[in-house]
Amino acid sequence: MALQSASGSDSSLGGVVTFITDFGTGAPYVGIMKGVMLSVAPWLRFVDISHEIAPQNIREGAFILATSWRYFPPGTVHLAVVDPGVGTARRPILLAGPDAFFVGPDNGLFGWVFGPPWEDYPAAGPRPLPEGWQAFVLNQPRFWRPDISRTFHGRDIFAPVAAHLAAGVRPDELGKPVGEVTALAWPRPQPAGRSALRGEVVYTDRFGNLVTNIPAKLVAPSARVEIAGHTILGLSPTYAEATGLAALVNSFGLLEVAVPGGSAARMLNAGPGTPVVVSPADG
Amino acid sequence: MALQSASGSDSSLGGVVTFITDFGTGAPYVGIMKGVMLSVAPWLRFVDISHEIAPQNIREGAFILATSWRYFPPGTVHLAVVDPGVGTARRPILLAGPDAFFVGPDNGLFGWVFGPPWEDYPAAGPRPLPEGWQAFVLNQPRFWRPDISRTFHGRDIFAPVAAHLAAGVRPDELGKPVGEVTALAWPRPQPAGRSALRGEVVYTDRFGNLVTNIPAKLVAPSARVEIAGHTILGLSPTYAEATGLAALVNSFGLLEVAVPGGSAARMLNAGPGTPVVVSPADG
Amino acid sequence: MALQSASGSDSSLGGVVTFITDFGTGAPYVGIMKGVMLSVAPWLRFVDISHEIAPQNIREGAFILATSWRYFPPGTVHLAVVDPGVGTARRPILLAGPDAFFVGPDNGLFGWVFGPPWEDYPAAGPRPLPEGWQAFVLNQPRFWRPDISRTFHGRDIFAPVAAHLAAGVRPDELGKPVGEVTALAWPRPQPAGRSALRGEVVYTDRFGNLVTNIPAKLVAPSARVEIAGHTILGLSPTYAEATGLAALVNSFGLLEVAVPGGSAARMLNAGPGTPVVVSPADG
Repeated sequence: MALQSASGSDSSLGGVVTFITDFGTGAPYVGIMKGVMLSVAPWLRFVDISHEIAPQNIREGAFILATSWRYFPPGTVHLAVVDPGVGTARRPILLAGPDAFFVGPDNGLFGWVFGPPWEDYPAAGPRPLPEGWQAFVLNQPRFWRPDISRTFHGRDIFAPVAAHLAAGVRPDELGKPVGEVTALAWPRPQPAGRSALRGEVVYTDRFGNLVTNIPAKLVAPSARVEIAGHTILGLSPTYAEATGLAALVNSFGLLEVAVPGGSAARMLNAGPGTPVVVSPADG
Repeated sequence: MALQSASGSDSSLGGVVTFITDFGTGAPYVGIMKGVMLSVAPWLRFVDISHEIAPQNIREGAFILATSWRYFPPGTVHLAVVDPGVGTARRPILLAGPDAFFVGPDNGLFGWVFGPPWEDYPAAGPRPLPEGWQAFVLNQPRFWRPDISRTFHGRDIFAPVAAHLAAGVRPDELGKPVGEVTALAWPRPQPAGRSALRGEVVYTDRFGNLVTNIPAKLVAPSARVEIAGHTILGLSPTYAEATGLAALVNSFGLLEVAVPGGSAARMLNAGPGTPVVVSPADG
Repeated sequence: MALQSASGSDSSLGGVVTFITDFGTGAPYVGIMKGVMLSVAPWLRFVDISHEIAPQNIREGAFILATSWRYFPPGTVHLAVVDPGVGTARRPILLAGPDAFFVGPDNGLFGWVFGPPWEDYPAAGPRPLPEGWQAFVLNQPRFWRPDISRTFHGRDIFAPVAAHLAAGVRPDELGKPVGEVTALAWPRPQPAGRSALRGEVVYTDRFGNLVTNIPAKLVAPSARVEIAGHTILGLSPTYAEATGLAALVNSFGLLEVAVPGGSAARMLNAGPGTPVVVSPADG
């Protein structure tokens, strides 16, 4: 098995486990998961990516995971728990790639990790694994907590499995191989009239910046961007050089609409799903 | 002294200190406490359980601590600072149990840690220590910061004491033994008419789930649950199988009222203190 | 170079890097920065001081940094990214003091770290470095990520530089020396009539406590404090001993206005910039 975690197997360094959940940081749920994991492997180290996924919003969790996991060192275990189907038939899974591991419910959270979804456009449903990836349905209760609730598999199944994995247990000891994971559909930008492209907002951050599904490489610097009744002419190279509502290339390489010093989300009353149309300047 | 912290005494592994405060995560107060602790013992590792306890809400802090600490490995130091009486006569204490240490103000925060309070029903006031537990009033300023403010004992007393404790200093070096800690009253469910039980909401989480003080083992799967003018017939086994307002067994083994995909707290305008009545289905 | 980080050079202990940003904790930006840093030096350990600086509010970031950094052990690297000018001409810098390192944009964030700004009253503009301090404009892309965006230097420049620094790279390898850093003006309290002092609120915390720019040592215990149309007579020694609106000495040694059990910010509709006048009791 080539998927050994370099860091996890060296207890002096400590395996790194990241978290993406919708649990918030006020309730004890995240702390409980970390306690469970430290009880398995006291040297683990945690990075909270986000606990503020909107409740039950698998799509947002999948986006945050897809845009962040590649920045972590090889062997990192990414634990994602946005799990409205907890206790039902949705499968608990472990996904092992060449550079990372993923643990959580197979409900679409992990369907966008193989490539940036704005490049490979996943469809909804089962998605076959690319070369170099393996998936396992978790079915080895000896690696779980002794009593399994029907309301908190993050604590009872996913946290202990992630901890064992980060501690060096092989993925194939933790579950049985399956050939696909569940994906949500990525909203592919569509042609709209003569040489225009219709996309949508896919994420709003704390600044009220509106991240769209339109790859910046499809947008000319002089493009016209229309959103929520407003028209923006040309891309701004930086936030600081914009005056008022602006379009620019964000740090993921996606088209973003922003109001530097303000909030585009508030100004436009826009958010995920808001349509965006990009067309040539003279369109 | 049998209360040695296994992890704290091994600097290559690092003592684990958890935090429960009402300081929020925007102000510098939590970071300052961590800096103070790293200055005592640079290898310490921190787990933030919650910094979002409602300001001065000792009851909420005690609940979060009581429901989370048992999941951590033996030797973990739990630092809890919800401290409206800072600078006054309330005692700074250290509580040492067979499996964990607790540091903070003796104002009720630590009165619910001996057993789940919904099993042992603490009363308000001084609570004698069970077998295997010891408590110490902190009185050794050589383990504190040199200048003690009257407004931030978290920084000046509790953080350095917790750090020394996690670094292997014995509890009896840090204070003088006392025989009891202060408890808040746990709201014991009361008989209500023929075979019914009246309890109340004790906690609301980010999902708007209403956690009650009624142990699920006292509730039949077919029970009738009344709350805020609504009646729920029977328990739902999972969130996903519920339609609209539902009652179910939560991950602490308590009765919970939820609206999957929504917020029971908002729908019912309910929260801590809202009465809940459970009765047999044919009641 | 005497500025070696003791902790950073010992991988078994782990360099400590603190964070102050306006990124929030919901978006993936902070996690991405940590992933980038762990990819440089897997043993780094992180302390989040605050990610809730108001968007683009350099002044708030500078205040949080100035009030917290001194509590951390020598060698700590403080990464601060509140960066409305990202991608423009503002300089990326590294500041090295006798006891700490600082990395981020040179826009005022680091102008208040040499002493408490309420003691040395920085003026706006370039500030010469005190004895024992050095600053470097970051100009060595070999320590950065390969592709530099114009919208996220936290990820592309500051995170990798902070990681290399915490891992033992010398400051003078990372940039070229400069003689000053940019400061914002600290609002110095002004004489107001006969023996009175006019200051202002500089920070509001989660409790709604109003931190002012008036050093408590300039305020007699019997002083009269006027704010937002209210008059407070005398200082309260602790929060608990106050009844209603109170003035007291906070944990930074600054005059603070608070409503124990409530919020002075809400009660007075006050916040940063609100004037405060302190005068003798018989004034």
